[in-house]
Amino acid sequence: MSAILKSRIKNPALLNKLRTVEEVVPFFENDMYMGWSGFTGVGGPKVVPVALADHVEKNKLQNKLRFTLITGASTDTDVEGRWASLGMLKRRTPHQVGKPIQKVINEGSTLFFDKHLSMVPQDLCYGFYTKDRADPARRNSIDVALVEATGIDENGQIILGPSVGAAPELVAYADKVIIEINTSIPSFYGLHDIQMPENPPFRTPFPVTSVTDRFGTPGIPVNPDKILAIIESDARDSVPDNTPSDAMSQAIANHLVHFFQNEVKQGRMPENLLPLQSGIGNIANAVVEGLASSSFENLNVWTEVFQDSFLDFLENGKLNFATSTSVRLTQAGFKRFFANFDEFKQKILLRSQYISNHPEIIRRLGVIAMNTPVEVDIYGQANSTCVNGSRMLNGLGGSGDFLRNAKLSIMHTPSARPTKTDPTGISCIVPMATHVDHTEHDLDVVVTDQGLADLRGLAPRERSRAIIKNCAHPDFKDQLLDYVEFAENYCTKTRSLHEPQVLSSVFKMQANLAENGTMKLKSW
Amino acid sequence: MSAILKSRIKNPALLNKLRTVEEVVPFFENDMYMGWSGFTGVGGPKVVPVALADHVEKNKLQNKLRFTLITGASTDTDVEGRWASLGMLKRRTPHQVGKPIQKVINEGSTLFFDKHLSMVPQDLCYGFYTKDRADPARRNSIDVALVEATGIDENGQIILGPSVGAAPELVAYADKVIIEINTSIPSFYGLHDIQMPENPPFRTPFPVTSVTDRFGTPGIPVNPDKILAIIESDARDSVPDNTPSDAMSQAIANHLVHFFQNEVKQGRMPENLLPLQSGIGNIANAVVEGLASSSFENLNVWTEVFQDSFLDFLENGKLNFATSTSVRLTQAGFKRFFANFDEFKQKILLRSQYISNHPEIIRRLGVIAMNTPVEVDIYGQANSTCVNGSRMLNGLGGSGDFLRNAKLSIMHTPSARPTKTDPTGISCIVPMATHVDHTEHDLDVVVTDQGLADLRGLAPRERSRAIIKNCAHPDFKDQLLDYVEFAENYCTKTRSLHEPQVLSSVFKMQANLAENGTMKLKSW
Repeated sequence: MSAILKSRIKNPALLNKLRTVEEVVPFFENDMYMGWSGFTGVGGPKVVPVALADHVEKNKLQNKLRFTLITGASTDTDVEGRWASLGMLKRRTPHQVGKPIQKVINEGSTLFFDKHLSMVPQDLCYGFYTKDRADPARRNSIDVALVEATGIDENGQIILGPSVGAAPELVAYADKVIIEINTSIPSFYGLHDIQMPENPPFRTPFPVTSVTDRFGTPGIPVNPDKILAIIESDARDSVPDNTPSDAMSQAIANHLVHFFQNEVKQGRMPENLLPLQSGIGNIANAVVEGLASSSFENLNVWTEVFQDSFLDFLENGKLNFATSTSVRLTQAGFKRFFANFDEFKQKILLRSQYISNHPEIIRRLGVIAMNTPVEVDIYGQANSTCVNGSRMLNGLGGSGDFLRNAKLSIMHTPSARPTKTDPTGISCIVPMATHVDHTEHDLDVVVTDQGLADLRGLAPRERSRAIIKNCAHPDFKDQLLDYVEFAENYCTKTRSLHEPQVLSSVFKMQANLAENGTMKLKSW
Repeated sequence: MSAILKSRIKNPALLNKLRTVEEVVPFFENDMYMGWSGFTGVGGPKVVPVALADHVEKNKLQNKLRFTLITGASTDTDVEGRWASLGMLKRRTPHQVGKPIQKVINEGSTLFFDKHLSMVPQDLCYGFYTKDRADPARRNSIDVALVEATGIDENGQIILGPSVGAAPELVAYADKVIIEINTSIPSFYGLHDIQMPENPPFRTPFPVTSVTDRFGTPGIPVNPDKILAIIESDARDSVPDNTPSDAMSQAIANHLVHFFQNEVKQGRMPENLLPLQSGIGNIANAVVEGLASSSFENLNVWTEVFQDSFLDFLENGKLNFATSTSVRLTQAGFKRFFANFDEFKQKILLRSQYISNHPEIIRRLGVIAMNTPVEVDIYGQANSTCVNGSRMLNGLGGSGDFLRNAKLSIMHTPSARPTKTDPTGISCIVPMATHVDHTEHDLDVVVTDQGLADLRGLAPRERSRAIIKNCAHPDFKDQLLDYVEFAENYCTKTRSLHEPQVLSSVFKMQANLAENGTMKLKSW
């Protein structure tokens, strides 16, 4: 046992749980239900999953040692990629990133379902995901939770690392727990606020009225009898570098900053806005950069994921405090983070995804939610998950938790994307979304590099014009306005002018893309 | 002034606000923003709206005296029908019932939008719906709120009648308030729990952990300077008789009662279940009847609307307590209700729709939500509002508030409906919903007269089979399974097998219905 490992396990009674990874591999059997800590690729187990992948490779157990894997959100892409390629994923929920996992989902060999991230840990504890287990006596638990931690405190509580995700519920609901203590990063003690799950009718209000409020414990309490093994780990999370902002994403950020300034001027927002939620990707980064360089001060963040761009935002003093369920930093980002760890710790708090994404708090605080969709339609429905209604990308994530409950629900997207043959061949504004993850009742604002459409209080026929005129790419504006006219004429005849659609033509742009490599049509 | 009216106005300072309806008519001007109390056709103003309709008719002001009308939900269908037919509705939100209002919406002369009922009063108080008023100084109020009440208490608080709806927010946000005191029904003093709106960042948790909890006042506080007039009313609400349950709806109820019994047996529900939410219509009635005649005891209700069938449920002792935002009873129902008023009052509590439909409480209590859609698709998306994606029926209502946040989210629907030429010409299970109000991430259970599909934890390709095999009408089962096979073959080629759809064929059943009067196809 290394000295650093010993220093991280402050409860001496648990030292007898120390094992090598080789010792735990035989525990795993085909068809087990398994949970992993981690969220957006950080804070997940890496030693045991890699050993299991090695075990499968070595013993030619491809497609024979398969698991139901439940996580907070996406895991380490390399680790999950190996599991996917080795046929180790029978079922997977609720979110994933990486080509190999997407391949097995879209080829049909892994059954995937996605659900609002605030609900997955709760529904797990309701017994919804284990109700069909073969053994009736085990329909209210999963076999094992693999949890990465940075320590165990005097009380035996698990001190997590850079994410909380669904770890509290997975630990509570698992028959056995395996803890990987990661000694390659500092202890995150004090950075978490942990609540253990409570099912109705025994729930009480969450006493949170600001982003800084705490009402839990620093670690996850766990019955020591459930701990199967504690293993040392020095595996680092490998978050890919961020896509830098560009002219497109900066244009979106500018539209949004102007919009927020006007909301303050009109008295609809406090001067320091309300807590911000922001997704992942170059648009999200540009928006954070835009806010950090704007005149706004004393901002706060209530979000899922804390990213590199927030480090600048905290350091330049304009961001007071950020709370999330994951600190997802690149290697360079973590270096900066740890170099100034004591200072950042004062301004960051990690919560479970059940809390970070909970409607109760998002609605109470009046969060400003910003997310990027696959496509938005002219009436304000948005697709976040399935290309052409069928091909799964990453999953819903927390977009629905935030967009349904925020004070301002914003979708930001490029107006157009390139195809192989046409630099603006895909319009992100379409007549009808091919898959609806967010309804017209959920979005307040759509913004692209072209401009911003404020949909609040508008009827569908007003929304279509606002979105097309302000947000569509110039290459598609006339085509989309032609569709509106076509649909309104058609629905005048059928007396259904509330939200005019011509069902027989509504996916013509997608069909043309498949056939001709562009959404640009000759006619409707 | 009648003696009864005087007895209802307990604050003598307000007696000088008494006016005749003729005196208030001149106040109204074209293009005003107006709010009405009431919810699902009860508790709304009737005297002033009727006088205004008379005024328009008499002075030939059709399409010249037009209003933006914001309500809790639907209003009296006769009153709203007259307003619609007289061209008095420029804009309307968020819910409506009746042929005349649907006609003007679907012919395009009234701009309607629908939004989650928990959000409409909140978004109004955010200034979202008045931001485009011509006068910049009046962009944070509506001109007038018309509120039906059953009294005014000693403190000058407005004591509402059989519904709360959005009345507290409308009163708070209006420049002027007109109160109709309805003396034809008893005072509802003590039946309401009223909170006045508070915008972020000043909101605190709702201290509600059971259906009976109170945390407000019995009436709506109002600045007396805002009261333009108090008018006596003896206009009765006219709720149409309920559609009685039939074999179809009783079959649905039976499937649900068996399902609930198994949930209890498996330890996923307490013996007395969790608070129930149930919609309007013959299926909802059958479910309430089914529960009332089942072995369940000590049930509770947390819902939007209290209906006639709940009277039996309370009287037979199996329902402990019901809280809602509206007591929507038929004439016979109200007669029963008032005959036993003192007893019913102990078991009923009315809240604002902001509270009755609030995600915070619905999720905390673990409500069981049951609603009826227009159509459900094979992957679990549901359409609650727009036939063929375009023709508006009544609006979203609170279905999204409940289905997104409930512990169990249930959609119940007939498996098929008749057309003029085919008694089972319309399948309520379709390949793709033509309008999505509830996503696949929101529904746990779909149930029809044919059976029940438990979707919890299932991937899309499992959901399609569960829904078709258990829920589709026998006349459509093979056709829908053929579509599944067709779509899975197609998506095998395109490597998008997560949720197989063929966009070019996905609305073929709807097209066939329009052309041939049935959804039954010769082939895909």
